[in-house]
Amino acid sequence: MSALDRVISDLVVANRILAREDVVDAYGHVSLRNPDNPKHFFLSRSVAPELVERGDIVELGLDGEPVREERRALYLERFIHAAIFEARPDIQAVVHAHAEDILPFGIAQATPLRPVIHSGSFIGANVPVWDIADRFGDTNLLVTNMEQGRDLAKSLGQNNVALMRGHGFASAARSLIEVVRISVYLPRNARALLRAKQLGGEIKYLAQGEIDARNRGYSPYSTETWRAWEYWANKAGCSHMLTKPTGAGTAHQGPQKK
Amino acid sequence: MSALDRVISDLVVANRILAREDVVDAYGHVSLRNPDNPKHFFLSRSVAPELVERGDIVELGLDGEPVREERRALYLERFIHAAIFEARPDIQAVVHAHAEDILPFGIAQATPLRPVIHSGSFIGANVPVWDIADRFGDTNLLVTNMEQGRDLAKSLGQNNVALMRGHGFASAARSLIEVVRISVYLPRNARALLRAKQLGGEIKYLAQGEIDARNRGYSPYSTETWRAWEYWANKAGCSHMLTKPTGAGTAHQGPQKK
Amino acid sequence: MSALDRVISDLVVANRILAREDVVDAYGHVSLRNPDNPKHFFLSRSVAPELVERGDIVELGLDGEPVREERRALYLERFIHAAIFEARPDIQAVVHAHAEDILPFGIAQATPLRPVIHSGSFIGANVPVWDIADRFGDTNLLVTNMEQGRDLAKSLGQNNVALMRGHGFASAARSLIEVVRISVYLPRNARALLRAKQLGGEIKYLAQGEIDARNRGYSPYSTETWRAWEYWANKAGCSHMLTKPTGAGTAHQGPQKK
Amino acid sequence: MSALDRVISDLVVANRILAREDVVDAYGHVSLRNPDNPKHFFLSRSVAPELVERGDIVELGLDGEPVREERRALYLERFIHAAIFEARPDIQAVVHAHAEDILPFGIAQATPLRPVIHSGSFIGANVPVWDIADRFGDTNLLVTNMEQGRDLAKSLGQNNVALMRGHGFASAARSLIEVVRISVYLPRNARALLRAKQLGGEIKYLAQGEIDARNRGYSPYSTETWRAWEYWANKAGCSHMLTKPTGAGTAHQGPQKK
Repeated sequence: MSALDRVISDLVVANRILAREDVVDAYGHVSLRNPDNPKHFFLSRSVAPELVERGDIVELGLDGEPVREERRALYLERFIHAAIFEARPDIQAVVHAHAEDILPFGIAQATPLRPVIHSGSFIGANVPVWDIADRFGDTNLLVTNMEQGRDLAKSLGQNNVALMRGHGFASAARSLIEVVRISVYLPRNARALLRAKQLGGEIKYLAQGEIDARNRGYSPYSTETWRAWEYWANKAGCSHMLTKPTGAGTAHQGPQKK
Repeated sequence: MSALDRVISDLVVANRILAREDVVDAYGHVSLRNPDNPKHFFLSRSVAPELVERGDIVELGLDGEPVREERRALYLERFIHAAIFEARPDIQAVVHAHAEDILPFGIAQATPLRPVIHSGSFIGANVPVWDIADRFGDTNLLVTNMEQGRDLAKSLGQNNVALMRGHGFASAARSLIEVVRISVYLPRNARALLRAKQLGGEIKYLAQGEIDARNRGYSPYSTETWRAWEYWANKAGCSHMLTKPTGAGTAHQGPQKK
Repeated sequence: MSALDRVISDLVVANRILAREDVVDAYGHVSLRNPDNPKHFFLSRSVAPELVERGDIVELGLDGEPVREERRALYLERFIHAAIFEARPDIQAVVHAHAEDILPFGIAQATPLRPVIHSGSFIGANVPVWDIADRFGDTNLLVTNMEQGRDLAKSLGQNNVALMRGHGFASAARSLIEVVRISVYLPRNARALLRAKQLGGEIKYLAQGEIDARNRGYSPYSTETWRAWEYWANKAGCSHMLTKPTGAGTAHQGPQKK
Repeated sequence: MSALDRVISDLVVANRILAREDVVDAYGHVSLRNPDNPKHFFLSRSVAPELVERGDIVELGLDGEPVREERRALYLERFIHAAIFEARPDIQAVVHAHAEDILPFGIAQATPLRPVIHSGSFIGANVPVWDIADRFGDTNLLVTNMEQGRDLAKSLGQNNVALMRGHGFASAARSLIEVVRISVYLPRNARALLRAKQLGGEIKYLAQGEIDARNRGYSPYSTETWRAWEYWANKAGCSHMLTKPTGAGTAHQGPQKK
């Protein structure tokens, strides 16, 4: 399997995982920068993520338009991806979705969404809320051109996640596995925080030092990260499409008895 | 496949989708006006929507009675559909259901149900609550004759959705796909609003201009609408029954690179 | 199929439905009075309701003991059923279960559980909370003898449902289909009430006249009741075991056009 | 089947049950002390519990390291198990997991998690909250060495469950079946308590005497305990791996009529 084939397979797996984990439904999408050409990225044509197959993946430029002739319909909101890839050379993968349990935090902004559980640490200490109305007034709330995408990317800044008021979120990460992980645990962190507030009293958020410590230890092909990827792919019925880099997630690295 | 065959198939698909998406259970129903005769509409005989097949679809008049001899039992509440089709010539499709998460908004009326998420925009800015007791006193809460149906239709007015106190909702739209979409996203919007209130602070509802902008862009066979319909049908196990109008949801309409 | 065979089949179906609808899990049970001998009733041996088969059904007396030699283990809490059948000659079927969403109403008694949705009307206007500790002090909370069962039956009185503090509920009805229906909609009514309270403001409960109107219209083999039974049995994978009384749920009884 | 084979099979079943019941996902683990050598215990290699097979089970010492040469990756947090087995000779089985609904009680500590439902009694009257930051400052929140494990075990003390702030819980019991049971009902008890608080008014917790009464009656192979184990294994698709001790869960022990 060529490196490009692997990239396409991984992106299909990511689509199926996000669907199975209720992060996306008919809507929402995930993209991956072309490792051979940082000015291009891969994204499915317009189809529900659960149904994405290899042949649905399209290569787009940083203007959000396809780099080859393309007659099939594309996602209206592909500019979210293009603008984030344009603004953030460090980012390799982007998710945009409407996962239900993050929506309240974009609607009622009295309680900022911050990490309270260890698996939520990768959303980062600060999750800005972008409101398309602030600059664009009354729209259909969709990000349908580069100007809107760039405004969202500006709000995202150097953070990993931005909420989009009344709409959803955009997340960005150093690897495809990481952006999926952030997107799966983001709603879980949101639920934990909402319920902790219902219990009342002081909330113990993750400390900045804890977020940093977790971030330092992260590796996209560590045993622990691969374990989740394999588990999710199995649940989503596409474990046969997994392409495991040589040596990933196999070796015991702790001290050994003989 | 004839135009009428397609209408019947679409209605079966709509039944299955609403069941799979937990909008209906053993109860609740969806109807479609006869495109060839606006004084008739199609509705299943009395059977759970999940189990509806083509042969279960019955043609009814605007008085809620079958237009041909019919020995099978019919839904008691078919008058909801008849009265809305009678009052609203612009309406092509109606849903009545008891989706659990909208019920609290009919029981505790301190918080009106209004759109807070973009996919909830089609419920419209105003969702009236109809209480059968206001005019009919102590009933079994079911709409079992035209007089009750007309009272509900009057409460609905020119809106897209009316809540029914202690019972459920009725939704009405310009197309079958749209009424299904409204009915699927209505409970999601209700959950988002309930949880936003739990977070506290000011709630940002969709602005009227945003609702209008989304409404202007809506088309029942647009790429985006068809994507959801295809996705839901696939989840409901009836994607083989889809009848895609020629050209629907296929063409890329944005700018193209060569 | 003999009348007795039908009774046994129906009881197996009821077990499977209650399991599929999350009313029971490994625990909880449903019983049916012997139509030929009101001093006996049928209940499964000790096995999870989801796994109950015809051969598991045992005939018990109103003392909670098997009427024939029985070497298999029985439910510890069969005395709940025996005591209710003893106290209430009008009752044909009993459920005891721990459905999660009714538990809060037995633990925090500031908000009595009352019907707020039409499908919840059959729980009745008044749902007493029985606390085993009031008379028996510190127990393992289980109803393991006739004395405890009779105390619970006394608390139930002429109502349809009693909550059991920190434990679950017992429901009693005129037919097997009705007791299943009550038990399925009881948690839904509880959720609707809890969420209505979270929205704040005045709660509109069903009026006594509405509860009475619904009760008068109830018939265990009406078209509407049978529709739910058929739907639930299908979901539970046991629609092949349905034994439909001749003529039940088939005829259209409204006015007919020719 | 040898005694050791049975132990391994039971541990595989426990892994699958905890996955099916949403106690663990890609993360979380369950261990069992070696009945032939109390200084050793069994735990899977690093793989999602849902995917654990017999060949994945590894034998570890009370220092958390494998007792034989092992080239496969191990769980980073195996020291939780080692430290609890070291500190508590009475304990035969340990679970560590991140079940979502217990998380709020570790984040907002105004409401201690205590048993409110009879199936929650086995969590014990007192559930301490351990915060890794209290002694170790800013970490990645994982228990990755014996020093951290011992600090957690000290916080657990003689209790059955300790919550871990922003992370999850550790539970410990006299048998594998019991630790699974505690871990399954712990989140249910948490949900019941959270919702009871939402209803307002006084909360009726289980009395100490009730917890004691339930504890006295517990037996890992009683009819009632086995019923749940069999039910859960069936749901998890591994009932074929059940190894039922002779006579467990079969005999009717109450009075018998002839």
